[in-house]
Amino acid sequence: MNVVIRDFPRAQADVIEGLAQAGVATVHEAQGRIGCLASSLRPIWSGAQVAGSAVTISAPPGDNWMLHVAIEQVQPGDILVLAPTSPCDAGYFGDLLATSAMARGCRGLVIDAGVRDIRDLTAMGFPVWSRAVSAQGTVKETLGSVNVPIICGGQAIHAGDVIVADDDGVVVVRQAEAATVLEAAKLRLDVEEAKRARLAAGELGLDIYDMRPRLAAKGLRYV
Amino acid sequence: MNVVIRDFPRAQADVIEGLAQAGVATVHEAQGRIGCLASSLRPIWSGAQVAGSAVTISAPPGDNWMLHVAIEQVQPGDILVLAPTSPCDAGYFGDLLATSAMARGCRGLVIDAGVRDIRDLTAMGFPVWSRAVSAQGTVKETLGSVNVPIICGGQAIHAGDVIVADDDGVVVVRQAEAATVLEAAKLRLDVEEAKRARLAAGELGLDIYDMRPRLAAKGLRYV
Amino acid sequence: MNVVIRDFPRAQADVIEGLAQAGVATVHEAQGRIGCLASSLRPIWSGAQVAGSAVTISAPPGDNWMLHVAIEQVQPGDILVLAPTSPCDAGYFGDLLATSAMARGCRGLVIDAGVRDIRDLTAMGFPVWSRAVSAQGTVKETLGSVNVPIICGGQAIHAGDVIVADDDGVVVVRQAEAATVLEAAKLRLDVEEAKRARLAAGELGLDIYDMRPRLAAKGLRYV
Amino acid sequence: MNVVIRDFPRAQADVIEGLAQAGVATVHEAQGRIGCLASSLRPIWSGAQVAGSAVTISAPPGDNWMLHVAIEQVQPGDILVLAPTSPCDAGYFGDLLATSAMARGCRGLVIDAGVRDIRDLTAMGFPVWSRAVSAQGTVKETLGSVNVPIICGGQAIHAGDVIVADDDGVVVVRQAEAATVLEAAKLRLDVEEAKRARLAAGELGLDIYDMRPRLAAKGLRYV
Amino acid sequence: MNVVIRDFPRAQADVIEGLAQAGVATVHEAQGRIGCLASSLRPIWSGAQVAGSAVTISAPPGDNWMLHVAIEQVQPGDILVLAPTSPCDAGYFGDLLATSAMARGCRGLVIDAGVRDIRDLTAMGFPVWSRAVSAQGTVKETLGSVNVPIICGGQAIHAGDVIVADDDGVVVVRQAEAATVLEAAKLRLDVEEAKRARLAAGELGLDIYDMRPRLAAKGLRYV
Amino acid sequence: MNVVIRDFPRAQADVIEGLAQAGVATVHEAQGRIGCLASSLRPIWSGAQVAGSAVTISAPPGDNWMLHVAIEQVQPGDILVLAPTSPCDAGYFGDLLATSAMARGCRGLVIDAGVRDIRDLTAMGFPVWSRAVSAQGTVKETLGSVNVPIICGGQAIHAGDVIVADDDGVVVVRQAEAATVLEAAKLRLDVEEAKRARLAAGELGLDIYDMRPRLAAKGLRYV
Repeated sequence: MNVVIRDFPRAQADVIEGLAQAGVATVHEAQGRIGCLASSLRPIWSGAQVAGSAVTISAPPGDNWMLHVAIEQVQPGDILVLAPTSPCDAGYFGDLLATSAMARGCRGLVIDAGVRDIRDLTAMGFPVWSRAVSAQGTVKETLGSVNVPIICGGQAIHAGDVIVADDDGVVVVRQAEAATVLEAAKLRLDVEEAKRARLAAGELGLDIYDMRPRLAAKGLRYV
Repeated sequence: MNVVIRDFPRAQADVIEGLAQAGVATVHEAQGRIGCLASSLRPIWSGAQVAGSAVTISAPPGDNWMLHVAIEQVQPGDILVLAPTSPCDAGYFGDLLATSAMARGCRGLVIDAGVRDIRDLTAMGFPVWSRAVSAQGTVKETLGSVNVPIICGGQAIHAGDVIVADDDGVVVVRQAEAATVLEAAKLRLDVEEAKRARLAAGELGLDIYDMRPRLAAKGLRYV
Repeated sequence: MNVVIRDFPRAQADVIEGLAQAGVATVHEAQGRIGCLASSLRPIWSGAQVAGSAVTISAPPGDNWMLHVAIEQVQPGDILVLAPTSPCDAGYFGDLLATSAMARGCRGLVIDAGVRDIRDLTAMGFPVWSRAVSAQGTVKETLGSVNVPIICGGQAIHAGDVIVADDDGVVVVRQAEAATVLEAAKLRLDVEEAKRARLAAGELGLDIYDMRPRLAAKGLRYV
Repeated sequence: MNVVIRDFPRAQADVIEGLAQAGVATVHEAQGRIGCLASSLRPIWSGAQVAGSAVTISAPPGDNWMLHVAIEQVQPGDILVLAPTSPCDAGYFGDLLATSAMARGCRGLVIDAGVRDIRDLTAMGFPVWSRAVSAQGTVKETLGSVNVPIICGGQAIHAGDVIVADDDGVVVVRQAEAATVLEAAKLRLDVEEAKRARLAAGELGLDIYDMRPRLAAKGLRYV
Repeated sequence: MNVVIRDFPRAQADVIEGLAQAGVATVHEAQGRIGCLASSLRPIWSGAQVAGSAVTISAPPGDNWMLHVAIEQVQPGDILVLAPTSPCDAGYFGDLLATSAMARGCRGLVIDAGVRDIRDLTAMGFPVWSRAVSAQGTVKETLGSVNVPIICGGQAIHAGDVIVADDDGVVVVRQAEAATVLEAAKLRLDVEEAKRARLAAGELGLDIYDMRPRLAAKGLRYV
Repeated sequence: MNVVIRDFPRAQADVIEGLAQAGVATVHEAQGRIGCLASSLRPIWSGAQVAGSAVTISAPPGDNWMLHVAIEQVQPGDILVLAPTSPCDAGYFGDLLATSAMARGCRGLVIDAGVRDIRDLTAMGFPVWSRAVSAQGTVKETLGSVNVPIICGGQAIHAGDVIVADDDGVVVVRQAEAATVLEAAKLRLDVEEAKRARLAAGELGLDIYDMRPRLAAKGLRYV
């Protein structure tokens, strides 16, 4: 039952780059408020903003063997995404695996478990979004699978889906929808820019969005 | 049942400023060890130390409509305080709302839920204490109330109460007691300064506070 | 039943220093993947990497009296380790206690509870690993014990055990095993250095560790 | 600062009895969807459905002294409500205190902390809603207060407020509003009874509540 | 973007019935140790053991409107499965909705949020697996979708997938694999029955499964 | 490093029986308020009250191999106690292992992880205290150790320590102290019996324990 899927479609590089620049919150809104991974996944250092194609890993609790298998499948621009088969916060990933991943062109790791060697990963500039930081070691005894669909942070992730991650967390965009979502994100950024100027000038959202009649209709009273 | 209360008393500006300078831990002690909000409310960036008059918001889960309403009620020096009516970690607040709030003179946000656009909020210098960071969007469909009493982080907050927040978290001071608490805080700071010098010189708390007889009376044995 | 134990063996200073340099993850692996404290214990500021002999404190919930007692027992190079007798996140420790502890040569605090005065502790360079940050004050009414065995972060800690702590968390090494563990850690660091170079050059862990035959034997299929 | 307030208004006995019969969910709805305590407060045994006037207790973590003080203030029909001043799950209450409380006519306990002697409390028929079950003992060293306003389970509770509790959890009704809320609850029960018959007969809520036009207007599509 | 999908394939009734009889743990093992929903989903009463075709609901936090829409789509033998779009523990479902669901032949509810009217649901024999019990009410303001793929309890659920639930929790079986999984489950039950008799007679798993050589080869020492 | 320790001292059978009858809360108090395991360990069914000698198991996350090894070491009257080496809630134990354990005279299981087959375990009358119920399966790939000291539920447990467990949770008594603790527990039960009668008659704890002067000295005011 344990497989490594070698081939899957990836989104175009310029689309992925555009999604990285748009950022998590904008991309999430642009695709209809779907795709946010759980807020328990946090960056281990601040300021990274990346996007890449998902290389997915389903791994047993406390066993990081499949990370070695997955790294061989990484192409430049990919992001590793790991979900344990039962909740586990052990430290699956550290500076040696990061060295190997970076040598393959990997842009980061999203993991619904723990990582370690935080200081080294930060110095290397390798971004990680994880549920925990833990030095607790793992074993290499039990198989998992690579590039099968997984659930990570409460979202379904397929190999090749675009992962966008920044200080707000992580969002997933289906591979086939990436270009469309990017268009919507760009439109949204333009609209937001205009609104920002008006709000900075002191105009109220109540007026810009014409909310007052609807608030009154719903029954809001000022006293 | 949904109301916006426009008028409420605020503490004097110099009292609020004094409380900001005293900081959360000192103010909490000075008022008799009450008023700390839950430790689950953490700053999104380090180093802010502010105080302001609470503009309170009671909002449904996943609905940030009342934030727009509340911002109109903000006066310079106020702090927004939001509690959802049932636990929710969605991202109620981001850089557009922060732009609007700053244009009104708002000093920060305390929210028992999620926020997003962390990088922008940090760059803008807008301080937030929240229970979560989440890009998950919210709707504008259901009314809440503004400036009614709320429970946020396990503490009752009334409009006009003084909110003090720093890297230690958040404490609330009743509006009518703010001046008295400030006096007590100043006394405490003076006393602490004297103690700090003695402790730094190597004196022990056991001796400074004359704890040895009471420890012996309680039965502590040295072996 | 409440005692302060004055005398206990400590590891040699150069061994402790060596363990500090090896860091938490390496030490944890070197002693056979044991000794990691729970990942809920996090540093209040990033970048500290220390080791020291444990001075242990068993304290009631919300009562920090024993910290004053323990500081008298601190010798230069020690680390305070506190566990409450029932779960509690109140702020047991702040800048005054840190001033006193530093005056005694204390290298840090590991506490399965809360601390406060985060900004001051950071400015002083006093490292703390804690479960929470909370300004909530504590009392001085009930005895505990000092230098008895405690459970902190899910690990048994005895006075004199070596505590190693960095951004990955905290690990405990038995006092009698410290020198042996250090030897193993040094060996491990040398091996890792060699592997790092090969991985950085693009070699795969699959090949370096000769994993392919065992993966095939377990039944992993590539599709 | 530590006080015991002896006198406070209670709601009428028949109103309290009526609210008990209506139950938590109905009372919560009848007063406009407010007043539910956090879902972390669960009954220690199933099937109790009670209401009573709150005798409130603010107690330090791990210290149950004030329970003894509070029991003297109990009048027949009251319910004890305890909140610790910082989060604590120790076992504040067991069969001896329950024996004493029952001798005073106490109808139950709501506690945002732990209880013990579960088997005895169940055999005695004394209902408790708590955050934890824990045999961990407490001390009697530090004062708290009785019948001051507290926050329990995320709701403000004043002495004399009506507490309603059943298998759904706990709701608080302000003392002055108890009669009005009871009227609304009775109306609601009548309306629900009629709806229940129609739903049991196979009619759909979509039709009974005439939801179809509004769903269509919002844009719901059937495919 | 909000849709109700009316048609989807269901598994055969006798297959579903067979899976119900096999139970959650056996079905989970029979399909290769996949499909378990998170252990945070617990039955509100003990002893139910059911299976049915999933009617899925994606709902906003604190908004139960789509439950009314979904009930119209229920066919006899179906199970409702609801996931909120952001974490929420409000009480989405109670005795009125259960009355309506039962009138349509619904066999139960799996919900990654809260329910209420526990006593009534138990008396009606309507089984629910939920993350929380909460009387907190919900609104009917924002659309969601019915019978789209959702993530509930950390597992992807599609309309028509077979849900099996008992006191161990909940497991999902893909609709197309249900018959195959049932065959595997039956085989497993037969094997387990034989093992049970041997174990009850005092034989050891070490011998029945011939574990001793492999334990020795791995290096286990008896001292 | 992985060992099975065959021999260790056990407490006398009548002492263990006496501790079972005293129950968790009384034993915990009798030994000076120590030894309670974390309140997250709960019984899977109500009403069991047992004691036995600990057979300890240190197991990897998601790997239950060592349970088979440990059952061979069980003598009649023993209780299995398992702690995973990193947090894990998978279902390590079910009805087959329980059948085997019961055939060896095992009195129960305490596990800081998950169990499954709840209905069968309940029907068999095999008591379990666990952190989770989960059908998620485990593997048999990695060694652990049996009868080494472990930390379970935040307490150190050695092979042969007496485990007492009931509806209040679990407490551990050191093997060498079991007889002394039993004497103290019996005394305590006698004293409690006398107090219970007085409290049931309406006397107050304030008077029975002569608390009034000390409350007044501490400054409690009645208003």
